[in-house]
Amino acid sequence: MTEGHADRGERRGKVTITEIAREAGVSVPTVSRVVNGRSDVAPGTRARVEDLLHRHGYRRRTATTSRTRAALLDLVFNDLDSPWAVEIIRGVEEVAHAAGIGTVVSAIHNRSGDARQWMTNLRARASDGVVLVTSVLEPVLHEELRRLGVPLVVIDPAGSPALDVPTVGATNWAGGMAATEHLLRLGHRRIGFVAGPPRLLCSRARLDGYRAALDRAGIAVDASLIVPGDFYQESGFTGCNALLDLAEPPTALFAASDQMAMGAVETLRRRGLRVPEDMSVVGFDDLPEVRWSAPPLTTVRQPLAEMGKLAVRTVLKLTRGEELDSPRVELATELVVRSSTAPVPAGRRGAGV
Amino acid sequence: MTEGHADRGERRGKVTITEIAREAGVSVPTVSRVVNGRSDVAPGTRARVEDLLHRHGYRRRTATTSRTRAALLDLVFNDLDSPWAVEIIRGVEEVAHAAGIGTVVSAIHNRSGDARQWMTNLRARASDGVVLVTSVLEPVLHEELRRLGVPLVVIDPAGSPALDVPTVGATNWAGGMAATEHLLRLGHRRIGFVAGPPRLLCSRARLDGYRAALDRAGIAVDASLIVPGDFYQESGFTGCNALLDLAEPPTALFAASDQMAMGAVETLRRRGLRVPEDMSVVGFDDLPEVRWSAPPLTTVRQPLAEMGKLAVRTVLKLTRGEELDSPRVELATELVVRSSTAPVPAGRRGAGV
Repeated sequence: MTEGHADRGERRGKVTITEIAREAGVSVPTVSRVVNGRSDVAPGTRARVEDLLHRHGYRRRTATTSRTRAALLDLVFNDLDSPWAVEIIRGVEEVAHAAGIGTVVSAIHNRSGDARQWMTNLRARASDGVVLVTSVLEPVLHEELRRLGVPLVVIDPAGSPALDVPTVGATNWAGGMAATEHLLRLGHRRIGFVAGPPRLLCSRARLDGYRAALDRAGIAVDASLIVPGDFYQESGFTGCNALLDLAEPPTALFAASDQMAMGAVETLRRRGLRVPEDMSVVGFDDLPEVRWSAPPLTTVRQPLAEMGKLAVRTVLKLTRGEELDSPRVELATELVVRSSTAPVPAGRRGAGV
Repeated sequence: MTEGHADRGERRGKVTITEIAREAGVSVPTVSRVVNGRSDVAPGTRARVEDLLHRHGYRRRTATTSRTRAALLDLVFNDLDSPWAVEIIRGVEEVAHAAGIGTVVSAIHNRSGDARQWMTNLRARASDGVVLVTSVLEPVLHEELRRLGVPLVVIDPAGSPALDVPTVGATNWAGGMAATEHLLRLGHRRIGFVAGPPRLLCSRARLDGYRAALDRAGIAVDASLIVPGDFYQESGFTGCNALLDLAEPPTALFAASDQMAMGAVETLRRRGLRVPEDMSVVGFDDLPEVRWSAPPLTTVRQPLAEMGKLAVRTVLKLTRGEELDSPRVELATELVVRSSTAPVPAGRRGAGV
């Protein structure tokens, strides 16, 4: 257990470290150092050894050969501060629990210090696989995990992931388009958009879906109607205020997260405006809470628990050395129409609030 | 790692299994069977051995003596379906992560089958401690964990826990009283209460706090104003509907959870009633979301993350064999006044909606 993945692979894998060493023309301890991610290996040697390890599918043997110890899976978030985290945990835990695997939940706060600490812990507990949720630290962690031979699956990648990292996401672009088209069908022409963090791919995809829907409807995108946000409530509150302060405010608002939509609804309430009579609001996520918000929120459902389940199944396939159907999977989003959207009043078609 | 707690204790503890066996007048394998929770031991023998193990503080040595392996802590929920779960996970993970300990999150759904599966997994991964959150399965799990020598701390116990199980809770009774007194100060005299599940101690304490506040104010408790709920939104929706259908409905409502309060707010919205003008609403929990609900919710803050942190610190103390200051800790709840409560309109003092 405490000897790390290298030794287990060496004892039981089809290709041993000794064979890799022979093929690479280096010593066994050198291969071991590469596998254990130590720094005292010349870059050229490391590259040659890693290539051989990869080609021989070395990492694939770790989990199937370790029947005597308890299996663990690491689920890593940036922050554990949003109700959507619990949705993902629920999905991951359900599949892992049924397979007798413990789900170790961590938060690394986009800080490399926390990530290093986590990596140290992961190494010590010899986790069988990692599911990483939307982190800008993904490239760094990926490199380390590859050295350790621990399979990684990324949920909702922050940036473009390395080609050999499987990802599970949602159809964010299609969701952004569906939300906007719903508002267009209700007669809205000036539609505000509260964006997510631009460094995240999912934010960009939702924004592009919004733009595409307007474009298809022959409506020029008005940059003043797009305001920045960070997915949290307060930015929705602030963003909606900014939109209402425009000379010609929108009649509808699409927020790139449910939490920002909730913040926007609160802005409208404080200004004495009604949802949806004075302004329609659409969110993104479909958190369980928004079914009960006042009013129940029209939103784009992201199947978060299902994304978690699929990520675990993908990690398990990797640990068993099975082929993946596809390294990139996007689960479908779905527009859920509730009570926060309504037709634009006839007298205000084409106008603002 | 895979040999279980007994062997580690035997190798490194101050009191060995051999000494326990001698003192109990049984064989070493018998003591080992007791420690490993096996069933092939006569009840009288088991009791004698367990007593000795306990008196010698046998279980206390497992974690401190296992420096060579990775530490794990199990955090067990009934269900991972509420935003308050993520608050507890956040607190637990923060303290555990800093101590280099992995937090294994599980859900047992109040089903003994799931609990058995979890127990099997726990045994296989040789977890160092368990934090269990509000489960009616607590007595069963406690018994098993005691046999394994794994320390247990219960957050928010469902029923009266065994005397030797440390618990971390919140001052539910005081919170229930504070919420009700807040409404009384605003002039409300008919105050509805949507209760939590009666099998949970926290539900009973909140209800008793409500009753105590009314009693202190010289107001007789009207049983028709107390409706059942299960902490989830829908029961708040239904409960509020029932209260509004009374011949003399209340002017204010106290829900024993934020989620039920949100359901109640939605009932009022659908009936065209305003919060707080037509009815004041108070929740319980202070989930991050309710700061942004429409309107922002007056509620009783339960320090969920802090409860998680304290539970981990308590488990760590137990694994180090340190004395606890107190086996029963209740962290303070706090009334947070926002926009969902207001004075009862003068014309309706003593009357319903």
